[in-house]
Amino acid sequence: MKKIINQPGNFVDEVMEGIVAAYGDRVKLLDGDRRVILSNTPTRDGKVGIVTGGGSGHLPVFLGYVGQGLLDGCAVGNVFASPSAEKMAKTIKACDRGNGVLCLYGNYGGDNMNFDMACEMVDLEDDIKTMTVRVKDDVASAPPEAAERRRGVAGMVYAFKVAGAAADEGRPLEAVAAVAQKALGNIRTMGIALSPCIVPDVGKPTFAIADHEVEIGMGIHGEPGIEVRAMASADELAEIILGKLLGDMPLTAGDTVSVMVNGLGATPKEELLIVYRYLHKQLSEKGVKLVMPHIGEFATSMEMAGLSVTLFKLDSELEALLRAPASTPFYTNENI
Amino acid sequence: MKKIINQPGNFVDEVMEGIVAAYGDRVKLLDGDRRVILSNTPTRDGKVGIVTGGGSGHLPVFLGYVGQGLLDGCAVGNVFASPSAEKMAKTIKACDRGNGVLCLYGNYGGDNMNFDMACEMVDLEDDIKTMTVRVKDDVASAPPEAAERRRGVAGMVYAFKVAGAAADEGRPLEAVAAVAQKALGNIRTMGIALSPCIVPDVGKPTFAIADHEVEIGMGIHGEPGIEVRAMASADELAEIILGKLLGDMPLTAGDTVSVMVNGLGATPKEELLIVYRYLHKQLSEKGVKLVMPHIGEFATSMEMAGLSVTLFKLDSELEALLRAPASTPFYTNENI
Repeated sequence: MKKIINQPGNFVDEVMEGIVAAYGDRVKLLDGDRRVILSNTPTRDGKVGIVTGGGSGHLPVFLGYVGQGLLDGCAVGNVFASPSAEKMAKTIKACDRGNGVLCLYGNYGGDNMNFDMACEMVDLEDDIKTMTVRVKDDVASAPPEAAERRRGVAGMVYAFKVAGAAADEGRPLEAVAAVAQKALGNIRTMGIALSPCIVPDVGKPTFAIADHEVEIGMGIHGEPGIEVRAMASADELAEIILGKLLGDMPLTAGDTVSVMVNGLGATPKEELLIVYRYLHKQLSEKGVKLVMPHIGEFATSMEMAGLSVTLFKLDSELEALLRAPASTPFYTNENI
Repeated sequence: MKKIINQPGNFVDEVMEGIVAAYGDRVKLLDGDRRVILSNTPTRDGKVGIVTGGGSGHLPVFLGYVGQGLLDGCAVGNVFASPSAEKMAKTIKACDRGNGVLCLYGNYGGDNMNFDMACEMVDLEDDIKTMTVRVKDDVASAPPEAAERRRGVAGMVYAFKVAGAAADEGRPLEAVAAVAQKALGNIRTMGIALSPCIVPDVGKPTFAIADHEVEIGMGIHGEPGIEVRAMASADELAEIILGKLLGDMPLTAGDTVSVMVNGLGATPKEELLIVYRYLHKQLSEKGVKLVMPHIGEFATSMEMAGLSVTLFKLDSELEALLRAPASTPFYTNENI
């Protein structure tokens, strides 16, 4: 196993130590808890809290989006494993300023169950009002007629951004949840994987992709995609992805979109740019306007090779929220 | 060859197309030349120009540092190959505002020869004054007594930053060159490689690293390092690197340092943070103060797995120049 790690069982705790060592001025751990991370940035009084949570191994997702203009806190699980309901409840409590907390996270069984329990706990024990919005942007994970079953992947970053900006403006909980849900109605993602990744505690790849093959639509934990096919050119792969995304969410002349080309971990920036070039050309030729490109690593699977493409269709409200300033140690839109 | 590319011969041109498609508001190509990229950001009148150049395949190095507070222009070569003297001369000409141009680049044979020729060309033909500072930060590439032969690697990013800020302040050419040289006197880098990378035109790895081995001190083009050894833990590897760096540039209690942990392409952010955690602990225990951590991908070798560590020892002048605002599509210190 060729990973730059120490004892596999210490992987997540040592990552958290690294984050606090590097960024302790901007984020902090909840007292006595190494798996709850909170923003250290001042916010407006009474701002609605926004929290997320999920398994480790996806940096910058999830905890990398805790900070100014984005999330207030994050519950951190083991690699590819949900944090406990107790950690989530502690996160919610720490992020409530009296006006409630939005739980905004990916649609995975463990996370759904634990966040539901956490919301019940803080309601009963602390009288904290919560609302829940689940991210279900991965078009490869279920057909349109079963879109409620879809998983949450890189598109969640756009949802974090929009919700964070709305909360920063002082909108109430219901309005923050509503605009996050509105954004998600306009967000679609699909990915391709070229290689597996290794969960440290397991020590070997938990699935395989043959040397000459690519898996279309694979999930960020190696969930099966919609097709295994022979490796193809960048333009062919981009065409497959774009076709699938537009089939689910058509774009027409005059639409404005932010396109994210997200590296899954081992894919060079050069390759992401080659794919962006193709998407930009195809969409521009349709009369679609591209703004605020997100090209880089936003939601990864450790050392997995591959990428995902997210389309975020913008109206004037969503574009303003996407452009509003945001800054964490792992994300800023200052230079986008 | 599992790369998300089209025709290998089009690799660099398509990357450039992607950059212009995504960031055409912030950078531009020199008219009629797809291999000279210039900043599109306004600067102070008469600012000293700063240019670099080098082979492709290292994003964000080199062209990713063209922008506000950093470089004015970059000549872009093929993968791992020097751009021509003619491209360099065109870059220098485009970046001169009447007060001369600093050529700041890595110490590689082809780049040295071509930049020397380019400087002669613009001197003779255009009466442009240039100065040259070569980056030689890689301690593994030659022993201290032959430090003049050392290659330039990720430490060049710090040199770009310092020189860019000094030029932005309005310092004259000689002073900008002098402070870049002063910074480089305080910068040391060493890397480790876990896997090779593939030059698109070649189509297969140009060197090999065995499954259970790590190469200590390998260069960013696969140049041999100082030792091939059995894969070790993150802390053992970090200890080897830190020992070598401190042997070359001792740090003592009261010193201030910025530490860069740079992923070479395929290494997860989680692993970079685990290494930063170790370095932070060791240096803090010596009484060294760590500021402005740079953790991420700053100088890569496409899909190579591995990382490098750079120490940049700061005095008050260098720290102020490092902290001065800078923003390109690939780098900002707004959130560092």
